[in-house]
Amino acid sequence: MNLAEFYRDQLFSDCLPFWFPRAIDTEHGGFLHCFDGDGTLVDSDKGVWIQGRMSWMLLTLYLEQERRPEWLEWAESGLRFLEEKCIDPTDGRMYFHVMRDGTPVRKRRYAYSESFAAIAYAAHAAATGSVESARKARHWFDHFVDWNFTPGRIPPKFTGHRPLEAIGPRMIGLVTAQELVKHLGEDETLRGWIDRFLADIERLFVKPELKVVMELVTPEGEISDHFDGRTLNPGHSIEAAWFILEEARRRGNDPHLVQLACNMIDWMWERGWDTEHGGLFYFRDVHGKPVQEYWHDMKFWWPHDETLIATLMAHKMTREPRYLAMHEQCREWSFKHFGDPEHGEWYGYLRRDGVPTSTLKGSLWKSFFHHPRALWLCHRLAADQ
Amino acid sequence: MNLAEFYRDQLFSDCLPFWFPRAIDTEHGGFLHCFDGDGTLVDSDKGVWIQGRMSWMLLTLYLEQERRPEWLEWAESGLRFLEEKCIDPTDGRMYFHVMRDGTPVRKRRYAYSESFAAIAYAAHAAATGSVESARKARHWFDHFVDWNFTPGRIPPKFTGHRPLEAIGPRMIGLVTAQELVKHLGEDETLRGWIDRFLADIERLFVKPELKVVMELVTPEGEISDHFDGRTLNPGHSIEAAWFILEEARRRGNDPHLVQLACNMIDWMWERGWDTEHGGLFYFRDVHGKPVQEYWHDMKFWWPHDETLIATLMAHKMTREPRYLAMHEQCREWSFKHFGDPEHGEWYGYLRRDGVPTSTLKGSLWKSFFHHPRALWLCHRLAADQ
Repeated sequence: MNLAEFYRDQLFSDCLPFWFPRAIDTEHGGFLHCFDGDGTLVDSDKGVWIQGRMSWMLLTLYLEQERRPEWLEWAESGLRFLEEKCIDPTDGRMYFHVMRDGTPVRKRRYAYSESFAAIAYAAHAAATGSVESARKARHWFDHFVDWNFTPGRIPPKFTGHRPLEAIGPRMIGLVTAQELVKHLGEDETLRGWIDRFLADIERLFVKPELKVVMELVTPEGEISDHFDGRTLNPGHSIEAAWFILEEARRRGNDPHLVQLACNMIDWMWERGWDTEHGGLFYFRDVHGKPVQEYWHDMKFWWPHDETLIATLMAHKMTREPRYLAMHEQCREWSFKHFGDPEHGEWYGYLRRDGVPTSTLKGSLWKSFFHHPRALWLCHRLAADQ
Repeated sequence: MNLAEFYRDQLFSDCLPFWFPRAIDTEHGGFLHCFDGDGTLVDSDKGVWIQGRMSWMLLTLYLEQERRPEWLEWAESGLRFLEEKCIDPTDGRMYFHVMRDGTPVRKRRYAYSESFAAIAYAAHAAATGSVESARKARHWFDHFVDWNFTPGRIPPKFTGHRPLEAIGPRMIGLVTAQELVKHLGEDETLRGWIDRFLADIERLFVKPELKVVMELVTPEGEISDHFDGRTLNPGHSIEAAWFILEEARRRGNDPHLVQLACNMIDWMWERGWDTEHGGLFYFRDVHGKPVQEYWHDMKFWWPHDETLIATLMAHKMTREPRYLAMHEQCREWSFKHFGDPEHGEWYGYLRRDGVPTSTLKGSLWKSFFHHPRALWLCHRLAADQ
């Protein structure tokens, strides 16, 4: 089996059958997703991020693999649930966590629910030609950028005495805008946001002198020499790097962006890969000091999925053999340790030495998103090498 | 060396010399506490909980071990820092996290900073006769109970659709009121709060039919069958148990309270002790389902300190040999795995198999509190067996 076949097989024979039709809530609509290793439902609550993410993933497969009516139908069930149950009528923002029937449990300060709704609606517009879905995609994107980038909009978690900027909203803004461009077409506003996110990431968070990508910096791009300010998230940086590679590709392999992204991958692999046990550490300290988060040395599934994408994409765009070697190293370790050949899908959380700490396959944080996205993109990249 | 000598030696030769005089901030007052394993300062920020907790611990040793002037002086430096730098002038509440010079970084929804200030002021009043410190102890206790137990006072983290009550404010309220009684004398108000906390804990959180102590329940004391509602914290329950044993002791070994506390210890040891690797799991699920928190199987220092106190106290009050056996089992495992004979003090965070994940000895969460408190109380209990 070649690489493209391997990824296709993992997606359609291992991952997707774990989730569907199990995840479809035929009673209340939307997706159930808190499943134990064998598929037993262990919590009926629903994550709002997850309703958008799973709808988007199904629509992407519908658009790019095969027009299977049930994929569209399931995605539309997720979108209806989002629309009908996940919006706070008092301010038009989305919740974060709801009960099975949509009764709200928690809303958060930040607005990632809205960004995942935006990409799901954009893919739906492309799949069906719905003008209304295109409008909703723009609505939620506009909401996301307004909420994140209008000073003073987000209720503060900290006092204003140590302001820090985060890479997270920029990278999610970037990939969200890219999805809108892909499905709805480019315009000056989306172009402007993409340029701004790229510039912000490079100017504020990428530090060539230290060969590192920071997670948090001062508004001037300085490192805040405290626990939080020093903490690196290698998987997050490597994910941001492939969003930048994707932008480089759209711009005819823009060499500056390719170099920027490859640096990010190289540096954060160097800082994140565990040479003793294999796998990517969750957090590292920029100066090699101890990290305050006690689970910093665990291996989470999603950084490995993002690294599979980033390394294969970097190899395709640069033909540097080291990226294929990194890809193979990450692939071998990841499928061996996260995989569950008996029931399918990956476990989410491993101890540093690669032993799962939990049998959960889905939770408020893990669903049908990072892993199938990686399998799908790696399948396409490998098929097109 | 007998048990009393062992604990005294650990406190005064291993733990205390790690922290002092290193932690004293001679420039800004108060305590520095973010130390690496060898005592290197890795963050100059200060936790507000920690200023109160370390002042209280020093004053306890000053009152009960020896009137060493530097212990009083250091404690007063912590109290001055709390007074001058840790109170938000806009609402009179305390911050959670400040910079070295006291510039505020973060205030939280909850009010534990205030409870630790209350016990520190109470001990200071006892140590010095200060009427002003006695007044401040009452002020912060009154603030703590008002904030936690006046409906609607705490800004909600969740919507109101799934209200849950937590054992945390009750057990901290209990031990805080006990410290005030001890140092300032009993009165009807403190008595009333203690009775209410004991009744709440027994009525809402202790479930004899399941042999378990819950962390969160519905306002009617029912189990909420979702990830959060099912999650147990054995170390926390065992800590609550010795607060109840202490109350039983004050009431002439009240048999009902002794039985209540011993049940809590027995059940939560049974649920929390790792029979494969030793040590207490951080979280468990009441129905044996997977826990959502990915670090649930780690071994933290403080549950072990609390279990050392609870088991030795239970043995003293019941003379049941099993409590001494549990104490010895916990003591052997804990000192072997958390201890650092080279530099002193315990590491804070171990993987399930007992390997430290971090060299940190102090952080925003760990300071001179749980471990010296356990060493001191176990020394006194063992000396008085």
